[in-house]
Amino acid sequence: MIPIYKNPKASEWSTILKRPTQSYANIETDAKTIFNEVYAERDKAILKYAKRFDHYQNTFFNVSNQEMDVAIDKVSDELKNAIQDAFQTIYKFHKAQSHFNSPKIETKKGVFCWQKKKPIQKVGLYIPGGSAPLFSTVLMLAIPAKIAKCHEIILCTPPSKNGEIHPAILYTAQLCGITQIFKVGGIQAIAGMTFGTESIPKVYKIFGPGNQYVTIAKQIATTYGVAIDMPAGPSELLIYADKTCIPEFVAADLLSQAEHGEDSQVILVAREMETILQVNTALGDQIKNIPRQAIAEKAIANSKCILMKNIESAFNLINSYAPEHLIIATNQAETLSEKVVNAGSVFLGNLTPESAGDYASGTNHTLPTNAYAKQYSGVNLDAFMKTITYQTLDENGVNSIGSTVEIMAETEGLTAHKNAMTLRLKSLNL
Amino acid sequence: MIPIYKNPKASEWSTILKRPTQSYANIETDAKTIFNEVYAERDKAILKYAKRFDHYQNTFFNVSNQEMDVAIDKVSDELKNAIQDAFQTIYKFHKAQSHFNSPKIETKKGVFCWQKKKPIQKVGLYIPGGSAPLFSTVLMLAIPAKIAKCHEIILCTPPSKNGEIHPAILYTAQLCGITQIFKVGGIQAIAGMTFGTESIPKVYKIFGPGNQYVTIAKQIATTYGVAIDMPAGPSELLIYADKTCIPEFVAADLLSQAEHGEDSQVILVAREMETILQVNTALGDQIKNIPRQAIAEKAIANSKCILMKNIESAFNLINSYAPEHLIIATNQAETLSEKVVNAGSVFLGNLTPESAGDYASGTNHTLPTNAYAKQYSGVNLDAFMKTITYQTLDENGVNSIGSTVEIMAETEGLTAHKNAMTLRLKSLNL
Repeated sequence: MIPIYKNPKASEWSTILKRPTQSYANIETDAKTIFNEVYAERDKAILKYAKRFDHYQNTFFNVSNQEMDVAIDKVSDELKNAIQDAFQTIYKFHKAQSHFNSPKIETKKGVFCWQKKKPIQKVGLYIPGGSAPLFSTVLMLAIPAKIAKCHEIILCTPPSKNGEIHPAILYTAQLCGITQIFKVGGIQAIAGMTFGTESIPKVYKIFGPGNQYVTIAKQIATTYGVAIDMPAGPSELLIYADKTCIPEFVAADLLSQAEHGEDSQVILVAREMETILQVNTALGDQIKNIPRQAIAEKAIANSKCILMKNIESAFNLINSYAPEHLIIATNQAETLSEKVVNAGSVFLGNLTPESAGDYASGTNHTLPTNAYAKQYSGVNLDAFMKTITYQTLDENGVNSIGSTVEIMAETEGLTAHKNAMTLRLKSLNL
Repeated sequence: MIPIYKNPKASEWSTILKRPTQSYANIETDAKTIFNEVYAERDKAILKYAKRFDHYQNTFFNVSNQEMDVAIDKVSDELKNAIQDAFQTIYKFHKAQSHFNSPKIETKKGVFCWQKKKPIQKVGLYIPGGSAPLFSTVLMLAIPAKIAKCHEIILCTPPSKNGEIHPAILYTAQLCGITQIFKVGGIQAIAGMTFGTESIPKVYKIFGPGNQYVTIAKQIATTYGVAIDMPAGPSELLIYADKTCIPEFVAADLLSQAEHGEDSQVILVAREMETILQVNTALGDQIKNIPRQAIAEKAIANSKCILMKNIESAFNLINSYAPEHLIIATNQAETLSEKVVNAGSVFLGNLTPESAGDYASGTNHTLPTNAYAKQYSGVNLDAFMKTITYQTLDENGVNSIGSTVEIMAETEGLTAHKNAMTLRLKSLNL
């Protein structure tokens, strides 16, 4: 049974909705040591830590063509078809985000400004290992990187104890056209992509989820001038439900989030107590039948059911929590979704489980956790590009903004700035 | 005379184009101490450091209405008109970047996905003090924040020794509709906006340039969950010029960058040696006549003239340097600009000085330095917003992607994810 709170006051929300905390202080020191070693020793340091943490025995970590062929053979046709289906929807949605060039704007007579989006030339994708082979994350990162036309796309993922990568990950990478794959995980992988080694190219931006080691390593990478997609934290789901929801579906969705990890958090915000009780009953039935029951039970212990009689208050609470995933489980979901200001991805209606977006609706599943939805977007096509601005002045332009530039530059005490415009003005008005 | 390099090999570029380095190690410890004190002591700690660093004697730091009125009276009508002119161009260009909602994409039968951009609700703008009152930066940050409809926009800027803020900064803030202004600068301002104090509201994202103290403080802010616009470094300009350039204009533009600070860097990439010599001669004449000659001379010492006979090599070099500002000083600038992949803002043609974009062309002047143009955009409207994705499935949608989700979830070992879809499929196919 998830703990229940009835119509809490706004002043209590932050306490009720507190996320499970994590402390990284002791990891940070170790991580910095690994970064320093990878900077100095490159592949040698990578191999040292691959051996220590992943029990990796080989002396190189590129995935060979032969290894790729073997892996592709191992993936069933059924799974290949499913991955190809998901590829199509994700490709379609991200391709639709292409707006590479903006129109030229004449901001004042003879002054023209515009923007162009250009790919980030070198990007690194990190795919976690661990208990589940996250080939779906390969789709989510590689597809927009390819649509953006990033020049160099590399992928790092930790090997299993026998030194291999799950065939579905390799198959998906190959389907997406990723050719540089390295069997390296954890802090040493992030450090390798940050500095570059003999084997691993240096990249300009690193994408992808990971455990607390990867999270802290990505944070350190930013201090060396590498960009990251976003800070990461444990996954979370908030469901808003009213009496038009289907309690069995709500329970199944809560469990789908709870099985991710013991530190996952699920929140139910309901309009009626009856809904809360029905969902809890269904959840009690369903949890017995999932293999990851033990993990889900611990996550459920972090979770809350909150009764909110007032719709406006309910959405104020939701926006203050800023959930990574938000399901609006009602028959008027799209209208209610207008009230959402802070969320990563929103799932509308009783027929839209979070797992649709995790795999195959087309939206990206790399999303801001830990309330970062207040200021960060999930991964999208723009995350693989940067915007350059352009401007040009003709003779009219110099005359129309020239004196404005002169006066402002002079007031800021920047005479040479003024001078650059004055020379042009004089040349036109001899 | 700027040092000259003739047709250097690509392997030499990174050495020639090395930026002036900075070490932040000792600042970081002090900065963390100030963050800890502001977290614990709030306004009390802010006042302590405002007194120590800015000799601030007051016991509060909000700008009062009366102070604002006095400041507005002090700004000349000529300057007011110039600032209003610049406001119009900057507003027009940033308003044209509004694409808040994307169309709904049917990614597969019955599966609909879309995006909406929403404002970041609470943003903090930092305006440096120091030798020049950067009211132009108020325009560059406040205008897009207002267009984005950020709910709470606060501004921090250090007071002068007599406890005041330059009237032009206050006038510009008022013109942009910024009402919460705090006379606090440096590390304590960034810490205040990170945690919130009795006076200063906590924000979700911090924007604005600053010296090395502000830069390191913004980096620390990110470790507390606050986003920043981009990492900052000394300003820089690269000019590409061929024989169709006007050497006096090129020299004036190089000087306008050089006067920013001793650690500024200016680079001239020219097709002919004659251009380099003509620009150096003009620069020698002009530098004597600017008040900030001493600063500019030190910056010039960090600078380079590079002769590149081959156009493709020249633009490869430019893209490897990734300049904050790039002037293409030729009569075919727009065609050549197609070769630009990495730059913050590009200025096309002989009539377009960098100072046009610094103040009034309409583009933003808050741009990525230190080669960050490889992966970061300058500040634009999108920087004040985040993107939320939405999806909804109807009955057709559940049937069209349901089995794909089931197979992928099962392979990733996430049975509850599969189950959430299976229940929906069963309900439709009884």
